Amino acid sequence: MKPVRKSLVGLSLLAPAAVLAKDDKPNIVFFLVDDMGWVDSSVAYGEEVYPNNLRFHTPNMDRLAREGVILTSAYACPVSTPTRTSLLTGMNAAHTGITNWTSTMRDTPSDATGGAVAMETGQIEENTGDRLIRPEWNINGMSPAPGVAHTQYATPLPQLLKDAGYFTIHVGKAHWASAGTPGASPYNMGFVVNVSGNVAGMPRSYQSEENYGNTPEKWNMLAVQNMTEYYGTGVHLTEALTREALKTLEYPIRHGEPFFLYMAHYATHTPIQPDKRFIQKYLDAGMDKGQARYASMVEGVDKSLGDLLDYLKEMGVEKNTVVVFMTDNGGNSENKQKGGVLHTQNKPLREGKGSCYEGGVRVPLMFRWPGRVAPNTRVNTPVIVEDLFPTLLEVAGVRNPRVVQAVDGESLVKLVTKGSEIAAKAAARGEIASQAEANRLVIPAEVSGLDPERVLVLHYPHKWKPYDLADIDYLSAVRKGDWKLVYRMQTGELELYDLSTDLGEQRNLAAEHPEKVKELAAELGSRLRGWKAPMPTVRRTGKPVAMPDELTN
Amino acid sequence: MKPVRKSLVGLSLLAPAAVLAKDDKPNIVFFLVDDMGWVDSSVAYGEEVYPNNLRFHTPNMDRLAREGVILTSAYACPVSTPTRTSLLTGMNAAHTGITNWTSTMRDTPSDATGGAVAMETGQIEENTGDRLIRPEWNINGMSPAPGVAHTQYATPLPQLLKDAGYFTIHVGKAHWASAGTPGASPYNMGFVVNVSGNVAGMPRSYQSEENYGNTPEKWNMLAVQNMTEYYGTGVHLTEALTREALKTLEYPIRHGEPFFLYMAHYATHTPIQPDKRFIQKYLDAGMDKGQARYASMVEGVDKSLGDLLDYLKEMGVEKNTVVVFMTDNGGNSENKQKGGVLHTQNKPLREGKGSCYEGGVRVPLMFRWPGRVAPNTRVNTPVIVEDLFPTLLEVAGVRNPRVVQAVDGESLVKLVTKGSEIAAKAAARGEIASQAEANRLVIPAEVSGLDPERVLVLHYPHKWKPYDLADIDYLSAVRKGDWKLVYRMQTGELELYDLSTDLGEQRNLAAEHPEKVKELAAELGSRLRGWKAPMPTVRRTGKPVAMPDELTN
Repeated sequence: MKPVRKSLVGLSLLAPAAVLAKDDKPNIVFFLVDDMGWVDSSVAYGEEVYPNNLRFHTPNMDRLAREGVILTSAYACPVSTPTRTSLLTGMNAAHTGITNWTSTMRDTPSDATGGAVAMETGQIEENTGDRLIRPEWNINGMSPAPGVAHTQYATPLPQLLKDAGYFTIHVGKAHWASAGTPGASPYNMGFVVNVSGNVAGMPRSYQSEENYGNTPEKWNMLAVQNMTEYYGTGVHLTEALTREALKTLEYPIRHGEPFFLYMAHYATHTPIQPDKRFIQKYLDAGMDKGQARYASMVEGVDKSLGDLLDYLKEMGVEKNTVVVFMTDNGGNSENKQKGGVLHTQNKPLREGKGSCYEGGVRVPLMFRWPGRVAPNTRVNTPVIVEDLFPTLLEVAGVRNPRVVQAVDGESLVKLVTKGSEIAAKAAARGEIASQAEANRLVIPAEVSGLDPERVLVLHYPHKWKPYDLADIDYLSAVRKGDWKLVYRMQTGELELYDLSTDLGEQRNLAAEHPEKVKELAAELGSRLRGWKAPMPTVRRTGKPVAMPDELTN
Repeated sequence: MKPVRKSLVGLSLLAPAAVLAKDDKPNIVFFLVDDMGWVDSSVAYGEEVYPNNLRFHTPNMDRLAREGVILTSAYACPVSTPTRTSLLTGMNAAHTGITNWTSTMRDTPSDATGGAVAMETGQIEENTGDRLIRPEWNINGMSPAPGVAHTQYATPLPQLLKDAGYFTIHVGKAHWASAGTPGASPYNMGFVVNVSGNVAGMPRSYQSEENYGNTPEKWNMLAVQNMTEYYGTGVHLTEALTREALKTLEYPIRHGEPFFLYMAHYATHTPIQPDKRFIQKYLDAGMDKGQARYASMVEGVDKSLGDLLDYLKEMGVEKNTVVVFMTDNGGNSENKQKGGVLHTQNKPLREGKGSCYEGGVRVPLMFRWPGRVAPNTRVNTPVIVEDLFPTLLEVAGVRNPRVVQAVDGESLVKLVTKGSEIAAKAAARGEIASQAEANRLVIPAEVSGLDPERVLVLHYPHKWKPYDLADIDYLSAVRKGDWKLVYRMQTGELELYDLSTDLGEQRNLAAEHPEKVKELAAELGSRLRGWKAPMPTVRRTGKPVAMPDELTN
């Protein structure tokens, strides 16, 4: 059964979409993958090709890389909700106060000290033996309406796009807010259509045989909604969401209205369940069962991307559609279901999801924009998720949007257009002989509008799991140029890394460069103060932990 | 929190909707109430004002009656799904083969012999002592795609409206098909937006305190989806759905695109739970608790209607919007939760939901169409739910729609426009002195295009509950003019009633008018044969029950 194809019959009654489309408002597809690591695709984002780039099979991500620009130094937040709310608000997570994932239920902290709830089990975890106590943070997420307790009030990106005439579509995982608050519904965020998005941060099941969690045995608040047509049909959730997305695109394309598709897959978040269409090759290649399952989920997402790209082409809107591909945080390296050796799966990056080390925050990011972005290019200027907010508004031609929040991000439009042109020209002149050289090409600030030495802040003032994870819990970090400072709030340590020579953050240079430590600590401290960032409390004193710059005086 | 109001700010940027709207494609609001009886509002559809008309408080239904036309002899099917699928296909239920409600789970008959499943409990009910065995019928409902087992394949009404340029919106209860089939999703039926519609025929709970059924204690397949924002907020489901509907209207109104809003409330289906905003007055008036709860649900629906009418006015689209108000079957008279005396709550009509007697099938129906329908009028030409299919297509200016099914319904456009004009003129000339006279005014076929003697078929070849209900189970009926024939398939009896003098179907005139019995039995038999209608099997013989005209030879 292919209702999408069938319904195309009616198209002949109307003018071709390409004729109707408005060039000043390109369509936007924002394709967001969950928990997929930076090295877990055949696209090699790094300076070299890593083992996983050879093990994972993602032909459609490859296609996007060939047709667009890779941003090789792109950052998200360590966990899901902060990335999603930074995207929708343009604010750094330390500024929204949404520094951890939101629970499905309102007023329920998710972090693991002081009565937190575990996403998987829904049970309250108590842990009072820790040195630090979780901060006050916006545990209910973001809100498009003022006056909602424990939320960041903001004008959401899709609302601004809708106000600008866009047909805005949400498919998949929302996870910006908790139940019983306005932010729980994509319809309040400015989406015209919503399929499945709500308060869930993961699916109860990817399997149609389990009705995606909608059975008496499996049900909890994470059961996936809006998917009844696929129950028992053998369709993996990733495929089902893709089919839904294609359906929703029909109306705006037919009517020549610009659309914004926010395609946010639940995959590859836990539960790690096989996508049967793709798993065998990974088992055959000798991957362990967990890794093979995860790899099959990645390829399921890749197939979804390909189906979308094909559909855009088939419908004649490919040339007028900007496609952005991103993931919401680093690969999960603390998940036994996923196989491999814990805490190493994102190598060469250190650690994974939850951490402010590169493995937790460095993410794939690609832009395809026919005629504007030079294909098969790379730019390495560091960028961060809140930059997408002004970027997509600029893409949509929205100038001086009226927003209630103070936006931190900066537009990447010049970087991905003019910056990619510079990269393409350098390649054409034969000045780039290797992937490493491509990644090291500097795009001047005069071209991109972005200072390559711009300060980017990553902040996770939380304990992630009910047990200790020293390289994840209570970290804060700042990147400036090639330098990165990591602040370990539990111990008061400040670590300094030179990412140009030590991407894996293995050689702490703090003792050798005290002035650099002081400089970056000051940058981090001033931002955390200015944003009134959530900071954990020291149990013994009842006072917040020191700001990083208080440790360098 | 009022996100709808807030988001109206952006409207100032665009031209007023009224300017943009296309007069040849009026907007359509189809407002469908569940299980609300014909006498259960302050609108008096009958020839006189009945006690319930004075006990129920529905000021917005009154408003619609003042501003539009009442169709006093309107029929739906005895239960929910057949009405909904007849509406979407234009076919009589005996023709679709969808003569009973569809189970949430695929391939699971809902009727109460031969292994049926109870909607409330989800449990299989066995009953093999009956004389009749349930027929083969399309237990999976309707399908917009061919080749799906046990479904009627059809081109759905919203698909045709979408193809004609309408922005089609589904809010509330869908219930056209079972899980795991395409018909389960409004997105496959031609809806651009869907809020909450799926396979559920009733809500697990109307109460936000119970998350509309989304709790570990309450959950089953009937838990209402897409409502997380209201969990625990005190908002009754009817109100929540209304707010969602208003949100979804914003985009088409802003863009001047014609819209079709299918607003299908779960209320007033079981569970009968109070709408706290309205219950006290009914308790104060001395109603028993069950009746008061039900009345409060009716008034909740009335408030929803009022909010929608207000919104249309506020947005400047009132004059260009056709509003149709209808219910999906008769009031439930076999429901202890609802209070009152069982089997009498629809008096003067006989029986209620499930039955082919008037109490089960005669329903409220009103049209408001400014400038086209004469206000405060009544027409009594008998009409039936499948007529809405060609009617709404004609309203939308869709001529010669390409459909895969054979449509049985006839357009009511002339009846509600020219017919209501005739009624208004008669009233203006002082020719109508009473409600009874208004209801008896004949609209000639030359005006309405509808023969007042047209044959309407009602067919319920099922056992409804696991226990016997003689006035509900296995009935088939035909109305022609003032005459009605009821065929009791269990006993082979044919009953004849003159509705003009015996609306309550108390005086069986079959013995006095054998020729009329023969005539109507022939009409019914030929249609059931032609449509290959599902007929129960006689357990003893293994053969189908006799056709009604086989009993009159």
